[in-house]
Parts: sequence; C-alpha cells; structure tokens
Amino acid sequence: MTVSLLTQAQHGNIRALSQLITAIESHDKDSLNLHSAVYDARKGAPILGITGPPGAGKSSLTDRLIHRYRKQGERVGIVAIDPSSHFTGGAILGDRIRMMSHASDPGVFIRSLGTRGSHGGLSRATQDIVACLDAAGFDRIIVETVGVGQTELDIARIADTTLIVLVPEAGDVVQTMKAGLFEVADLFVINKSDRGGGENLSTALQGQMALDEKAWQVPVLLASALKDEGIEGILEQIEAHRAFARDNHDYHTMREMLRRELFFDLLSDEIASRMRQKIAHDKHLSQLLEHYVHEGRNPYGLLAKLLESIVP
Amino acid sequence: MTVSLLTQAQHGNIRALSQLITAIESHDKDSLNLHSAVYDARKGAPILGITGPPGAGKSSLTDRLIHRYRKQGERVGIVAIDPSSHFTGGAILGDRIRMMSHASDPGVFIRSLGTRGSHGGLSRATQDIVACLDAAGFDRIIVETVGVGQTELDIARIADTTLIVLVPEAGDVVQTMKAGLFEVADLFVINKSDRGGGENLSTALQGQMALDEKAWQVPVLLASALKDEGIEGILEQIEAHRAFARDNHDYHTMREMLRRELFFDLLSDEIASRMRQKIAHDKHLSQLLEHYVHEGRNPYGLLAKLLESIVP
Repeated sequence: MTVSLLTQAQHGNIRALSQLITAIESHDKDSLNLHSAVYDARKGAPILGITGPPGAGKSSLTDRLIHRYRKQGERVGIVAIDPSSHFTGGAILGDRIRMMSHASDPGVFIRSLGTRGSHGGLSRATQDIVACLDAAGFDRIIVETVGVGQTELDIARIADTTLIVLVPEAGDVVQTMKAGLFEVADLFVINKSDRGGGENLSTALQGQMALDEKAWQVPVLLASALKDEGIEGILEQIEAHRAFARDNHDYHTMREMLRRELFFDLLSDEIASRMRQKIAHDKHLSQLLEHYVHEGRNPYGLLAKLLESIVP
Repeated sequence: MTVSLLTQAQHGNIRALSQLITAIESHDKDSLNLHSAVYDARKGAPILGITGPPGAGKSSLTDRLIHRYRKQGERVGIVAIDPSSHFTGGAILGDRIRMMSHASDPGVFIRSLGTRGSHGGLSRATQDIVACLDAAGFDRIIVETVGVGQTELDIARIADTTLIVLVPEAGDVVQTMKAGLFEVADLFVINKSDRGGGENLSTALQGQMALDEKAWQVPVLLASALKDEGIEGILEQIEAHRAFARDNHDYHTMREMLRRELFFDLLSDEIASRMRQKIAHDKHLSQLLEHYVHEGRNPYGLLAKLLESIVP
C-alpha cells in the first residue's frame, strides 16, 4: 500500500507525497522496503543547500530562486530545517516561504523539519525527504537550514551545491564561523547588500578563502532578495558550480567519501534501533540496561553481553 | 599489559596515564576489556564543563580555577577540546593552559583533543578520556571546549556542571545562540567584565532564562580572569550547583536519559566498527559497498544484506 503512495507521488499527487514522507519518517519495522523503493526511484535532481545565520534572509532568497525556477517551468521541492525547533511536518521556516506566494502552486512542495520526530538524526531525516522529492520527480531540490553549527554543516554536505547567505554586517559571524563552513561553501551570497558594507565583507571572505587551495574558486556575490537584485548572478554561479562538479575528480572523491560515511551511519542507526527492540523484549538485558542507567558507571559489561549475541 | 598501565596511572604515573589514554583511543580489537576496567575504576570526580565562543577567555578562566583547586590540594585533570582542529594529543588549547603555569605541576594533567583520531566522535572520545582521568584519581575534571555549536552542546552534556563563558559584548552571540545552550547552562560567567557592559548582558541573559521554568536558578556572574576578580563567586556557585544536583529528582532523571543515549551511541558505534571489518573481509560485501559508493543512489540493498547476517 505504501509503495503505491510512491507511484501516486510520481504521478504528481501531492497528498500522496506528503503521506509517503510521513511513512518514510515513521521507520516502521518493514519500512526498509519502502526506503529501498524510494531510493531506487531517484532521478538525480540537483540539490541546492542554503544555509546561514538567522536573519540573513534565507527564506526571501529561497523564494526568489523558486520564482526563477518556476518561470523556467521547473518543479521545486524544498526541505526547510530548523534544528532549534522541535516541530516537524508543517510550519516554521516552511511557512515563511509558503506564505510568500507559492501556497497554491502545485509545482512547489515544501516540507518543514524540526528535531522532533527525526528518527536517526536530522541528517538522515533530511536525506530521506530529499530522496522522496527526487523520486517524485521534482526538477530542483532546495534544502534550507538555519544556523552555522555542526548539524547545519552535516546537512550542507547532503547538497550538491551549498550556498551560504550572510548580511553585510556579518563580519563577526565570519570570525566565529567554523572552519568547516568555509570547507562546505560553494557560493557565498551577501544578501541585503543595498544597505552597504557588502564590499568589505566580500573582501574579508575572499581573503579568508585565499588560504585554501580549492579547485573551485568560491564566488562571493552581492544581492538583495527584497529588491530582487543579484538573483540572476546567483543562478548562473549555481549552474557554473554544477558544471564544475560534473567533471572534477576531487569532487567525486569527496562525494564517494560522504556516501561511504552515510552508509555506515545508516547501518549503525538501523542496528541500534533493532538492538533497542531486542533489549526491550529480553528481560535479562532490560535489567542490565536499567542497572547501568540508574547507577552504573560502566556501560561496557552490557555492551559485551549484547555484542556476544550478534554474529561477530 | 595495558591494564597494568591503569594500575600505574592510579599510582600517579603521568606517563602511564598518557599511554593509557592513547591505548583507550586506539580502539583495538580487544580494547573493550580495557575500557571496562577503566570505567569500573572510576571514582566519581565532579566534572566541570567550560564552553563559550572563541576569545571569551575560557583558558584564562580555567587557569584561575585550576590555581584555586591546587591551593586546596586537589589534583585536576583537564580535557581541552577544539572541534575545529584536526590535531589530537598535545597542543592547541591545552598548550595555552599548560604554558601559563602548570607545566611542571604533577597535580595538573592536560590532554588536548581535536577531531582527528577521535574514533566514534568527539563526544565518545571525551567521555573515554574523562573516564581515564577519573580512574586515575583526579579530584576535579574540567572539560573545556571552544564554540557554541552542536558538538559543544553534546560535550557540555558530559559535564555534571556546565559553565558558559561570555564577554560583555556578546549580545549578538546570545542572539544567535542556540536554545540548547540555555538548556545546558548551569552557570553563566561574563568574563572581561572590567571592560564594562557586563551588567547589560547579565540582564539580557536573566531575561532570556526567566522564560524557562528551571528548578535551578542559573546564576550570571561577572568576572575578570585576567585581574583575578570574581573567581571565588564562581567556585561557590559550582559547589552550589553540585549540592543542588545531588538531591534533585529532575537532574537525576536527565542524567539517566543521557546515560541511556550514551549506551546506544556506544553500541551503534561498536557494531558499525565490527561491520566495517566484516565488509573489509568479505569480497562480495566489499563489492556491494564499492558499487554503492561509486554510483549507487540506493544504500538500502546493501543494508538489507548486512542486516540479514545479524541475529534479528
């Protein structure tokens, strides 16, 4: 029945797509088949990551990009993530975008994601939703996240191209920015640059990046989502990065490394969830776990017992 | 042989302690026994977490606290973490503290930790080092981390008491601070408050925290590590929090929840590492993994095959 949701979603049924994502998120006992079917059905749409500190205007910028893609006749699927929110399913970030103008456009699908209900972490939940959107045939997928922390970095790594949005006054944000953020950035956009000061930040960013020897010269673009300025330049650079990525050996090596990591994350996750069930159904193991949880300093006794029960 | 390192470390042999930590970090095939021995030998020293943005003066403050504890005749073990660094073992943060004054003091042990060489993530590596220091009989353990991101939050959760260090000008840091940071904070210290402006930030922080209904009223203290001002107040509040935590039901419930999470993280980790070995030694599985890594969009086929080989 759930696999038929996939078929319906592939035929453009938005309601079925919502239900498919919910089914994928539920991680039922037999959802692995559904996961496999969804991942098999992926078409390989480009995934654009948009991240940056709160207040940088990510939603407005996302909105502008969606408009351009829609004009080109492309369907756009968006995952809007707020790691500080516990809410999953409908509102927050997604609402901000949705309310702008795409509420009645069937070519735009938005799914919001908070930390609650994200079995196996935000990163995995995001990947699963992206896979659903990709399988459903969206031409572009955008993953928007708030923040500049580790979770956001992990999520940026899901994207083929990662765009970091800043404001002209973000000099100190750049100072405290993690080195990792520079590593994942494929494109910097200084939004709200009609305020002035964008050139200074641009110089600072370029200076910082000159330290890295990257094959891809990360562009720093000035824009104003509100005034609809600089959007075409962003679209061009997104495509330029895609063209670069297609042929670059290092890029592919990095992708392969990430895929390898993803696989082992997935595996650990799946096994841990089975182990939880195993413990829940085994009185002796449950008692050992409770003993450790209540007073124990040493988790390794229980660990050894559980590992014994697994084929080495 | 490695267990004898533990015995020697317990007798105050600093060189043996260093080697013990290295052995624990190596995660050899049979290191589970060593882990178990170390965790069994833990004495339950209080663990103080110190975190905050770069430049807040965490190292100087840590240095002042070490001085006070040493005056009381207590031995202090420090884990200095820099998640943005790839270096593990000696330098960075730890050096900053060490160089100050404790280089020749055998009652102070400092271990630095970057992201490299931290098998199973920084959080687990930190816990393991803390366990070694605790087993070796240090009276106080301090975990110092840079930053205000997710990794730092995870690490703050290892501590019994978490102290967040800010500077008076940190208003915007507080704005972009994750809600989670307020959740883990047991104590705010506004360092460098001789500059002025500390009162304003203090009011802002207290206003923010008034939104939470916490049983523990998080103190906001003004201090200047450089001028050695406000240090006694910090020490008092650390003890006050310990006394609170000892008797508070919610605190214990939270600790138990964290311990449960820790256990399953540990389990996933351990199983994933065994699975890696299993795949490496199985030609068919290796081929499946490589196929997925190089071209596959669907990791679930391989996942299903591996799970079959594990007792359900």
